[in-house]
Amino acid sequence: MAEAKTADSVIELSFQDSETAKIVYDSLKPEELLPKAARAEIEVSIRENNLSLDINARDTAALRATINSFLRWAAIARDMTKI
Amino acid sequence: MAEAKTADSVIELSFQDSETAKIVYDSLKPEELLPKAARAEIEVSIRENNLSLDINARDTAALRATINSFLRWAAIARDMTKI
Repeated sequence: MAEAKTADSVIELSFQDSETAKIVYDSLKPEELLPKAARAEIEVSIRENNLSLDINARDTAALRATINSFLRWAAIARDMTKI
Repeated sequence: MAEAKTADSVIELSFQDSETAKIVYDSLKPEELLPKAARAEIEVSIRENNLSLDINARDTAALRATINSFLRWAAIARDMTKI
């Protein structure tokens, strides 16, 4: 029985205002955050106060790890705007 | 600065065959797995060898917790088919 052949996810986060969305967007630069050996690719896009994270992973484990990392970084970036 | 107002995700898992997808699907009964107090709703649907998890959460933390739980259960269900 094989592992999930592919595991993809689109995550939509909507924020109160576009400034906050932009700050979180600027902090989520995939090319800097995702290690070369990552078993997933991610594209982050912004539309007004909404962020979209489009993740394509080789398996469920890689998908879980990538989602966890990016949602944690998004939460940190959002909290930094409170200081 | 507010928390993400809403946090939604669609996760697509494609398996080698529809039997495996069905076994994982049958094991992911949201109404049994998600506690009443969960701050997220999830709909699981199946199409041949593909599972789709549609999650609507109140914030990023609830989204992360729900995704983690369901991907972990999916991995357990998939591994059970190997025995």
